[in-house]
Amino acid sequence: MQFHLDGFRPGDPAIAHAPESNAAKSDAVDVLIVGCGPAGLTLAAQLAAFPDITTMIVESKDGPLQLGQADGIACRTMEMFEAFGFSERVKKESYWVNEVAFWKPDAADPSRIVRSGRVQDVEDGLSEMPHVILNQARVHDFLLETMWHAPLRLEPRYARRFVGIDMEQSSATHPVIARLERLDPEHQGEIETVRARYVIGCDGARSNVRQAIGRALTGDSANQAWGVMDVLAVTDFPDIRLKAAIHSANDGSVLVIPREGGYLVRLYIELDKLAEGERVASKAITAEHLVAAAQRIFRPYTLDVKEIAWWSVYEIGQRLCDRFDNAPDDSTHPSVFIAGDACHTHSPKAGQGMNVSMQDGFNLGWKLAAVLRGQSSPAILHTYSDERRALAKELIDFDRAFAKMFSARPKESGTRDGDGIDPAEFQKYFVKQGRFTAGTAVHYAPSLISAAPLHQQLAAGFVVGMRFHSAPVIRLADAKPLHLGHVAKADGRWRLFLFADDKAPDDASSRLRALCEWLAQSDASPLRAYTPVEADIDSVIDVRAVFQQGHRDLAFDALPPLLRPRKGCLKLIDYEKAFCPDLKNGPDIFDARGIDRANGCIVVLRPDQYVAHVLPLDARDHLAAFFGGFMLRRG
Amino acid sequence: MQFHLDGFRPGDPAIAHAPESNAAKSDAVDVLIVGCGPAGLTLAAQLAAFPDITTMIVESKDGPLQLGQADGIACRTMEMFEAFGFSERVKKESYWVNEVAFWKPDAADPSRIVRSGRVQDVEDGLSEMPHVILNQARVHDFLLETMWHAPLRLEPRYARRFVGIDMEQSSATHPVIARLERLDPEHQGEIETVRARYVIGCDGARSNVRQAIGRALTGDSANQAWGVMDVLAVTDFPDIRLKAAIHSANDGSVLVIPREGGYLVRLYIELDKLAEGERVASKAITAEHLVAAAQRIFRPYTLDVKEIAWWSVYEIGQRLCDRFDNAPDDSTHPSVFIAGDACHTHSPKAGQGMNVSMQDGFNLGWKLAAVLRGQSSPAILHTYSDERRALAKELIDFDRAFAKMFSARPKESGTRDGDGIDPAEFQKYFVKQGRFTAGTAVHYAPSLISAAPLHQQLAAGFVVGMRFHSAPVIRLADAKPLHLGHVAKADGRWRLFLFADDKAPDDASSRLRALCEWLAQSDASPLRAYTPVEADIDSVIDVRAVFQQGHRDLAFDALPPLLRPRKGCLKLIDYEKAFCPDLKNGPDIFDARGIDRANGCIVVLRPDQYVAHVLPLDARDHLAAFFGGFMLRRG
Repeated sequence: MQFHLDGFRPGDPAIAHAPESNAAKSDAVDVLIVGCGPAGLTLAAQLAAFPDITTMIVESKDGPLQLGQADGIACRTMEMFEAFGFSERVKKESYWVNEVAFWKPDAADPSRIVRSGRVQDVEDGLSEMPHVILNQARVHDFLLETMWHAPLRLEPRYARRFVGIDMEQSSATHPVIARLERLDPEHQGEIETVRARYVIGCDGARSNVRQAIGRALTGDSANQAWGVMDVLAVTDFPDIRLKAAIHSANDGSVLVIPREGGYLVRLYIELDKLAEGERVASKAITAEHLVAAAQRIFRPYTLDVKEIAWWSVYEIGQRLCDRFDNAPDDSTHPSVFIAGDACHTHSPKAGQGMNVSMQDGFNLGWKLAAVLRGQSSPAILHTYSDERRALAKELIDFDRAFAKMFSARPKESGTRDGDGIDPAEFQKYFVKQGRFTAGTAVHYAPSLISAAPLHQQLAAGFVVGMRFHSAPVIRLADAKPLHLGHVAKADGRWRLFLFADDKAPDDASSRLRALCEWLAQSDASPLRAYTPVEADIDSVIDVRAVFQQGHRDLAFDALPPLLRPRKGCLKLIDYEKAFCPDLKNGPDIFDARGIDRANGCIVVLRPDQYVAHVLPLDARDHLAAFFGGFMLRRG
Repeated sequence: MQFHLDGFRPGDPAIAHAPESNAAKSDAVDVLIVGCGPAGLTLAAQLAAFPDITTMIVESKDGPLQLGQADGIACRTMEMFEAFGFSERVKKESYWVNEVAFWKPDAADPSRIVRSGRVQDVEDGLSEMPHVILNQARVHDFLLETMWHAPLRLEPRYARRFVGIDMEQSSATHPVIARLERLDPEHQGEIETVRARYVIGCDGARSNVRQAIGRALTGDSANQAWGVMDVLAVTDFPDIRLKAAIHSANDGSVLVIPREGGYLVRLYIELDKLAEGERVASKAITAEHLVAAAQRIFRPYTLDVKEIAWWSVYEIGQRLCDRFDNAPDDSTHPSVFIAGDACHTHSPKAGQGMNVSMQDGFNLGWKLAAVLRGQSSPAILHTYSDERRALAKELIDFDRAFAKMFSARPKESGTRDGDGIDPAEFQKYFVKQGRFTAGTAVHYAPSLISAAPLHQQLAAGFVVGMRFHSAPVIRLADAKPLHLGHVAKADGRWRLFLFADDKAPDDASSRLRALCEWLAQSDASPLRAYTPVEADIDSVIDVRAVFQQGHRDLAFDALPPLLRPRKGCLKLIDYEKAFCPDLKNGPDIFDARGIDRANGCIVVLRPDQYVAHVLPLDARDHLAAFFGGFMLRRG
């Protein structure tokens, strides 16, 4: 954490200085977010970092979520939480999914289940973050706190239902007029109008915003009913504190997801295998039905449910919207977007819904901010729908295969029907798809903001289009061991990670040094082209360097001035731009990520931590051309 | 973190359920703490965990500390913060002391300083926690939050000055009557009286409580003047983000302590080497004098101070009180105690003051709670003064040697006076004393609550009388990697860590199994003797086991019932009592801590994480006798 740049200020440094409240007071805002789910809150948390943007977020419920719903937090989402500054709190409070157990019918007596396998949940080295489970309500709490501690001091306006929009083409600045109906008793039924530059519908599968822009979810609307319940129970099932997939012979399947706190557990229970008398429309299903079904599947183990904290039945299918914004085509810039369940729905069993929705918000947030702050052309807004829809499509295909496999009758069921699934196959599939469920497999196609991977061989482990895969380094100035990826905060900045050639930074032939000098001095440099004159040199594009030498072998004062910039109103030196390899613990970052030691490279990071480009250290024109494709020169 | 034991409750699990406010409302309390410094707040944070004890804490200032004072947080203190539940927040916000640089006069030109060495600050493996630096005010904030989130919802009463006590021998329950003078404008001068069972003076070096019980600090009252300032500065001194000890030839010494946030730095500046015109009484010294002195010592490097956040001059010496309580002798139990600077003062350069004061509070807190809750004989209260005075004495001796060495003229000063200190000697001394300054060298002598080390060879790395040295393990039930020491929370419980012999827990010859059965069933078992009938079996003595087998090679249901106890009003199973070695990363806990694999052992932990005893797994009588020496049998 860096703070005190503009003078010492006592108190909690996580609470940003808010010079004057800029929260939307009028009926005209830059951004109106509809819905306080994971997508809306992530988007709001991102936009709250920018006090020069007015953001309003509204929600039809009368207050924050207290209970239930999603609970899986993928490694990639934890990396994003680190960027927002609260990963350590989630780590502390959550259940960690370390291993997964698989159970199948006992071949000798198919009425009993036996363990068929046990695997590590996340492969070693996939992410520095664990896969964890935590009540969605707590995730909301952390995002709400982030919004409130940010410079904008943003908080939701509850009890407001979005009822429609009018497009005012005559308004150059605020073309969208949203109508909100008040639901709080004192103002029940009153209609408020909000004029906005952009409206984002994060209002769930039944999205009114989606409807207002004439888009629809298409696909299977109801595949199969499943029950879910969070219980405090006593059981002799030995894997109740492991994620466990149980396939019984004739009573269906259960997915066991242990929960935070050491006692609570979530059970996903297949419902179309209910006993005859219980096979009723899902709306008639009671919690007792769910408990009875689980008890049958657990046999010979007992399950004595002491308290049901939350339960639900869902029949949600895999559905997708054809476009995630209101642009009729690529030549017209969008002004209304949809995110999260409003544009893609899937079954909860792969634990993806909340994660993908939050990543939608992270993807869109920095783009809106860049356009609203005059840094980028509105053309980048098209990439939101392009990138996120392609990902949602992949996810739905995966989810469909996974759900089908999960529900299939196991081969050992004794019935010898041909279409049974071999539990060993299911386990193999699970392992293979680990990167996908961890959220680290997302791979954006080339676009305005994601280059074609022409120089990938310079850094094989930083794949263009994929999220930056962090690795440990040592900070030069204070010898602190840390993760390089953790310097990439959710602050809307682009980053250049310069991996040095093998020369020391004060060597006359150092290519890194030459690049830094060009970046700092040339009129063609993106830093000079896009950074406002009065702003800190790293306020738009943040340059960091990683050297090959050990941290005791480099002198801080040998760094080029760009890597020890003077910042803030006191013009203090920023000491956190240069890093060295961690030579003490395993392969260093150059080996771990396959970086060309002879040549070094530039790794360009987007504000959402995706690798946008890998370039040679002397590819100045290419670097300038890349940014020139979407950035706007400052006056 | 474990929660939801007595049913699901939404919200932040760090905020304990407070069934009814038990904060002292009347004028009679169990404990009155005077002073909101590190000792008082740690003591209050510990006592706030017990809603059955009424605690009041008062402070003469009108609100929480905002600025300045101490900033060093030793590894051992971080371990204690983990027990209080906020170590991760300190880790995130603080500066990490990773390495230390030493600077001396350049032999070629003694008017210039040169780097003479650079060492790692904390030796590898000494603690799982880093040595960090953070504004004392933030440490107070975390302790205040811990108090407020605890079941007692304790908060300080500010603007109350302790003016004296009367002992009321006639009162069997509340023998101490404290008089407090209100300092807030509305009640200025009013005297409040508080009747207490125990009063603890944490009111600093000029302690009124100490005076009230007729004790005095003795020793050197003023050795030497030093200046200290927290500055935002621009310098070309390359080690400004490292802890650095600078000895100039003729202008004195500076200790550089980088601070949290990446820009702030603290400088300790020797003052008796001020230039002629500046050599004035310390009360006339200004911040400008300090800056000028620092600038001379830094030569040839420049130091351009942009902002002084805080500064002070101190002439504090090494002083000690002959006893830390009001007991005239060992046969009379004390009712008034003093802690922190009230009973020992030292120079700040070794960074020990705040740390030792907090450990005073931690040491005394659980003892007071055990006596007040009827668990222990008041005889244990004598160990507070015995243990902490011996430690304070050692610290003062260390501090005196360290301060002398720090202030000595360096040998390279060119003056060739015989008593100069060789900078290499200073560096050697620094490294050698690393364990002491990390707070991990504290070694309590045998007493009622700390056994003679007769079986130390069973666990060479868990030294009786020293703090439990944590090591990584894997939790059996959920395969989570964690630090064994982190299960020892500041909850007033004793702990038995049972290190298994090489048998599996369901083997008939397992000594660990036999011990667990005896602990659970025998009338002679300390668990049965001291645990109230209605309370959870682990509420007084918490038993945990570490096995030698890998976590996939043991079955949870093979554990003896004591290691999967039923708890709380729902009688849920606690899954967090059994651990296995981490076989993936380096030597496992048995090898790392020298545990006898053939025989295993019992390691008894005090509620303040000190090892009280190491015993063979079959030494039941010795175990019972140890607890019998100070615990009180429950009715």
